[in-house]
Amino acid sequence: MSMIDLNPYRRIEDDLQQLAQYTEEPTRKGVTRRLYSPQWAAAQRHLVQLMRGEGLNPWVDAVGNVHGRIEGRSRHTILTGSHFDTVRGGGAYDGVYGVVAGIFALSQIKKRCRVPEKSLEVVAFCEEEGSRFPMTCLGSRAILGAWQPEEVARLVDDQGTSLFEAMQMNGLDWRSMGEANRSDYEAYIELHVEQGPELEDAQCAIGVVSEIFGQERWLVSVRGDSAHAGTTPLARRQDALVAASAMVLAINTLGYRYEPIGIATVGILEVIHGSINCVPGHVQFSVDFRAAQDSVRQRLADEIRHAIEDEAKRYGVRVNISPKTVAQAVPMHESLRNTISERARAIGLSQMPIASRAGHDAQIIAQALPTAMIFVPSAQGLSHHPDEYTHRQHLMNGSVVLESTLEKLANG
Amino acid sequence: MSMIDLNPYRRIEDDLQQLAQYTEEPTRKGVTRRLYSPQWAAAQRHLVQLMRGEGLNPWVDAVGNVHGRIEGRSRHTILTGSHFDTVRGGGAYDGVYGVVAGIFALSQIKKRCRVPEKSLEVVAFCEEEGSRFPMTCLGSRAILGAWQPEEVARLVDDQGTSLFEAMQMNGLDWRSMGEANRSDYEAYIELHVEQGPELEDAQCAIGVVSEIFGQERWLVSVRGDSAHAGTTPLARRQDALVAASAMVLAINTLGYRYEPIGIATVGILEVIHGSINCVPGHVQFSVDFRAAQDSVRQRLADEIRHAIEDEAKRYGVRVNISPKTVAQAVPMHESLRNTISERARAIGLSQMPIASRAGHDAQIIAQALPTAMIFVPSAQGLSHHPDEYTHRQHLMNGSVVLESTLEKLANG
Repeated sequence: MSMIDLNPYRRIEDDLQQLAQYTEEPTRKGVTRRLYSPQWAAAQRHLVQLMRGEGLNPWVDAVGNVHGRIEGRSRHTILTGSHFDTVRGGGAYDGVYGVVAGIFALSQIKKRCRVPEKSLEVVAFCEEEGSRFPMTCLGSRAILGAWQPEEVARLVDDQGTSLFEAMQMNGLDWRSMGEANRSDYEAYIELHVEQGPELEDAQCAIGVVSEIFGQERWLVSVRGDSAHAGTTPLARRQDALVAASAMVLAINTLGYRYEPIGIATVGILEVIHGSINCVPGHVQFSVDFRAAQDSVRQRLADEIRHAIEDEAKRYGVRVNISPKTVAQAVPMHESLRNTISERARAIGLSQMPIASRAGHDAQIIAQALPTAMIFVPSAQGLSHHPDEYTHRQHLMNGSVVLESTLEKLANG
Repeated sequence: MSMIDLNPYRRIEDDLQQLAQYTEEPTRKGVTRRLYSPQWAAAQRHLVQLMRGEGLNPWVDAVGNVHGRIEGRSRHTILTGSHFDTVRGGGAYDGVYGVVAGIFALSQIKKRCRVPEKSLEVVAFCEEEGSRFPMTCLGSRAILGAWQPEEVARLVDDQGTSLFEAMQMNGLDWRSMGEANRSDYEAYIELHVEQGPELEDAQCAIGVVSEIFGQERWLVSVRGDSAHAGTTPLARRQDALVAASAMVLAINTLGYRYEPIGIATVGILEVIHGSINCVPGHVQFSVDFRAAQDSVRQRLADEIRHAIEDEAKRYGVRVNISPKTVAQAVPMHESLRNTISERARAIGLSQMPIASRAGHDAQIIAQALPTAMIFVPSAQGLSHHPDEYTHRQHLMNGSVVLESTLEKLANG
């Protein structure tokens, strides 16, 4: 570490604090910055200014991604970046850290070598979280052309505004979305906060991501029979909530069985048309489960399904399981992982391989390009939470490793 | 039975079918007739007509109760009746059966003896279910003066309409509510469908109610910590839903332990601000528990509270229990019970003592007057349900016992 002057890197934290001001709910703790909101647009302008200040000739593409670039001798481009939208009540680091550090890395590289062998580009993806429209990773899908017009045309937010209307309000025309598609990218490196506690627990500075967990989401409908809460003997009830509660506990137990290579969560549960003095007749809940390999996820899916059906039989209720989304598990590119690992070692930072249990733009991009991710520790593993925090030292460490990796990839 | 011509009693079922037409949700199965709705008002007019047709000189009191009366030699009055409002998606029998049978009983008595010793009155209470405003038994509270002006003044339905506004729309003035209060009642007999399966299971025609269960309602708030569903290891979670699910099962188990002298139900449960990919941080649920005696209910309350607190400790979450309503257990008047029992025996109908696990107007009135209830079987014990059903024969049986009891009480 002694060779590197870390002082300039301190501004990364300042930039993140400035960007955290752009929140839709200023009276609520944390950051809420959803796709195409006015605060999202303000953050977008801020990022354009930031890139312009670093001489990266920024432009906004057809979906609202912000790009900055150093033109190399070759048109082949090494891409870095992350997203600048957030969940509701999220933190100041998730996504936007990789954007700010990417801008800073390119700015530092540009100072040292005006024209690298390969071109370098940083992108601030417009959307990854799916917090406004029921679709994730619009930004990275757009640059790969990995989206279906008829699917995107259906997207409506919870206020009834369509994606296309929201684009229009931001001066974007959905008919031009295809223009965001690019074919000159050669590799993608994403720097991100871990969002889990493993690096902190191991007191390790840098996580070299081995794979991104595959993920599946279900909606489960449990139907019993609504009945009078006073007069209906327990043995005669078909109580949808008692059954659903047993299912929640069974799914949680399966999560424990599969951890750390799999995990399962029930995030939403509601008694439909529930009444304080009625036996619940209908319950809906969600299941989110993830695994390091698709074969493991498939096994976990089977076990969750059996657990749900067993409890349904035990409590005399009917269930309907509707799979909603599936994302395959994605291994990170081995040679890129080795480069990151080698750069971290050269800089003198502790490192470890780590699986990403969260989804990322890298999960989309890895299906088209050699892709790798760098993680830095999250305090207490908190993320999607107002108290999300990563210490300045960790922010700087990640940024230095990213910069060194990009320079290596660009200049060989 | 052979002495009684049951043919005239057949019309009770026809009257109930006619009244079932007055429903706010005609496209939905079952009957929805909530206090002061247009369909409620139409049913009220129908009942006035019915009483007028039977020569009972009907009038509507200051809260919308419909009364019909046979003037006796004495001003002392034996009251019968029930309510004509319903729950959402309820049946055609709950409440209104006691009203229609009461009208018919008075009409039959009037034919036999024009002036009984004591006066007889039938009342159709405007409201008992609490299905529109968060308060139950407005009709019976009003005739006893058992209501608090400041409490009633606060009542607002889920559309934002206040009770007073709703009264006004029906030509009623809340400032006159006190005029519904009466002091000439000597006893109250309420005929009602059982709403549970005990009479049907025992193949018994008449239930002589021994007591009405006391009842308590709580709201429970469970607070854990919202976290990322992918990256948060299970051991680090404070999952409010997993904890609440364990509480639901524990409460259900306690219900089994206390049945048949107590029962417990969780009717409402919701993850607050839940998201499919977040560990639930906040859950709210309701508890409805009932017992034949207040001492039993108190013991059950303690056990439910301990079960909730034990699970909270086990899962590392915080709980807040807010008691919402309490209704004391009420024994039925012994001499009135004996009269009912003796009349059923004289008529030749099978009978048994039975506890009411549902609340009734009789629960309010018993605090001021000698009160008793007569139950007839409910098919499969279903109630608060569109498929609520009582066979015509049972309807007639109950009506005959009611009539005979009222005549006995009026003439001695």
